[in-house]
Amino acid sequence: MTLDLTGDVVALTRTLCDIPSVSGDEKAIADAVESALRALDHLEVLRDGDAVVARTSLGRPSRVVLAGHLDTVPIKDNLPIKINDDILYGRGTVDMKGGVAVMLQIAATLPEPRHDLTFVFYDHEEVASRLSGLGRLVREHPDWLAGDFAILGEPSNASVEGGCQGTMRIQITVPGVAAHSARSWRGVNAIHGAGAVLDLLRAYEPRQPIVDGLQYREGLNAVKVEGGIAGNVIPDECRVWVNYRFAPDRSGEEAEAHLRELFAGFEIEVQDLAPGARPGLDQPAAREFVEAVGGVVEAKLGWTDVARFAQLGIPAVNYGPGDPLLAHTDNEFCPAQDIRDSLAKLLKWLG
Amino acid sequence: MTLDLTGDVVALTRTLCDIPSVSGDEKAIADAVESALRALDHLEVLRDGDAVVARTSLGRPSRVVLAGHLDTVPIKDNLPIKINDDILYGRGTVDMKGGVAVMLQIAATLPEPRHDLTFVFYDHEEVASRLSGLGRLVREHPDWLAGDFAILGEPSNASVEGGCQGTMRIQITVPGVAAHSARSWRGVNAIHGAGAVLDLLRAYEPRQPIVDGLQYREGLNAVKVEGGIAGNVIPDECRVWVNYRFAPDRSGEEAEAHLRELFAGFEIEVQDLAPGARPGLDQPAAREFVEAVGGVVEAKLGWTDVARFAQLGIPAVNYGPGDPLLAHTDNEFCPAQDIRDSLAKLLKWLG
Repeated sequence: MTLDLTGDVVALTRTLCDIPSVSGDEKAIADAVESALRALDHLEVLRDGDAVVARTSLGRPSRVVLAGHLDTVPIKDNLPIKINDDILYGRGTVDMKGGVAVMLQIAATLPEPRHDLTFVFYDHEEVASRLSGLGRLVREHPDWLAGDFAILGEPSNASVEGGCQGTMRIQITVPGVAAHSARSWRGVNAIHGAGAVLDLLRAYEPRQPIVDGLQYREGLNAVKVEGGIAGNVIPDECRVWVNYRFAPDRSGEEAEAHLRELFAGFEIEVQDLAPGARPGLDQPAAREFVEAVGGVVEAKLGWTDVARFAQLGIPAVNYGPGDPLLAHTDNEFCPAQDIRDSLAKLLKWLG
Repeated sequence: MTLDLTGDVVALTRTLCDIPSVSGDEKAIADAVESALRALDHLEVLRDGDAVVARTSLGRPSRVVLAGHLDTVPIKDNLPIKINDDILYGRGTVDMKGGVAVMLQIAATLPEPRHDLTFVFYDHEEVASRLSGLGRLVREHPDWLAGDFAILGEPSNASVEGGCQGTMRIQITVPGVAAHSARSWRGVNAIHGAGAVLDLLRAYEPRQPIVDGLQYREGLNAVKVEGGIAGNVIPDECRVWVNYRFAPDRSGEEAEAHLRELFAGFEIEVQDLAPGARPGLDQPAAREFVEAVGGVVEAKLGWTDVARFAQLGIPAVNYGPGDPLLAHTDNEFCPAQDIRDSLAKLLKWLG
């Protein structure tokens, strides 16, 4: 498989989409990307597993990292993609082969960018956080990721989404005492007890703080509930899983303390905690980028890999073609013009 | 396997316990019971599947039915049973090989009882109601069960438990609208919505009505709850299963109407409904029996097969050795004296 990085960016997107690359199966696409980049003399190319990194070394005063993942969620009869009326339909068109195509084209066609550039293409973004290819690079090759500012090419409707909110999942276990349901007063009903947890959730007023000029919007929700032993037994345990999405003015520790205070008296286990990232739009490279691409900036509400860059002290934003609300849907689609616009704006800024 | 029906009733109980007869596996014990009963000239013996019926035909003015199930819940390393200090330990000692042994001994040793007697030993009591051997006899051989009064030998601490409460299970489905949990306000959380169902359950005051002189005690409980799609998705459905135990002054239809009124506005599906049975202690045979065995009568709170006799218009009570609270527990045990007392009282009444 040979990729043409200098032709039409929409054709390149189509080629990338049509290489199946569901998480765990990124070898073919990583091989194709690596081999296409190795053909470019102005780039140093590195590889770790199915992550490929390429970078210029022009001695520019600042370095911008452009990053995107190569994997997709499972295919749902939506490959190969179709193009009708200049719209691409199918898996990966939104999340995020368009963004990857834009970066590859920049890598190939801009040998002398005004900032040094590092391109990061990685595996396992769509699955458990511990498998993340970017997480692996952060742990094992942080030097490969060094830079002053990072742009993650996740779909953002080609507007800039700054930072990201954190996410935390806790399990609340409500105990009870089992009894035959014909003599229910001998037991304590754990599902009824969980009603008190739901009361707190129903009464909760989520914050909408402004952080570095962007308005975030938190959320606190039960995402799973499970309880019960048998149709004739008073349940002795009920478990409620709660997901807290918190603005980046709150650290992971603060988020945990907040939930422990809110659910005081309940047994809580933290199962997952990924802090957010402040938008970092006070950085010169970030400001310059925002101005170059049109100035519209919104807060990123979901957790994204910008938080992994924040972990390395690198401010990062989300900027890529495609409507994020269509990501993972069976009818994922992306207007070709979004991809062309995104490429043109980045080329103008970096050229 | 030959059963000795005329020796020690405790030894007979032990022999019956040591024939494994978990529901669905009653053939060996039914064969043994049938063959022992066929050896008795004063009884007519009938068989359907693993249910065995035997009856006298002495032309007495009234007929009493003595019934008990042959199956047990699964064995938990508690067979063969052990006897220490005159206490029987192991599966079936309480539920209900003791009761079966008492009836078999009456069948063998009382050729001329003062009421005509029908003995009913049946399969599949401990599993889904539709499998019940007694239910099968009610449907296919109601004439075999004809009688004026029935005694079910289920464990009742050797006191008389009159009638039984009904039981009903409904599934309540609370809808929501799925959304990514990072933008939770775009969805409607079905688990939070189920909080309103739990509110009704937590506030509910169960009735304790007196029916035919016995006090019953109702209960309304969530027995299972289930909801949630994924850790980052606002759940679009939550299901709550509710078990209603209702006193026998309320019919199945009335019980259903009550729940539909209580949970008005929610989507309800009735999954199981078994009406109770009034104690029927106004019947002469019933009064005579209660006086003969000592006069202590309590309301039966759990649903039992007395309701199947009620369906045929035959008043029925529960009376058998063993503590019903130990039924189905891994440390099921029964004092041998309970079994002997039970036998002695029944023999005295019927002899």
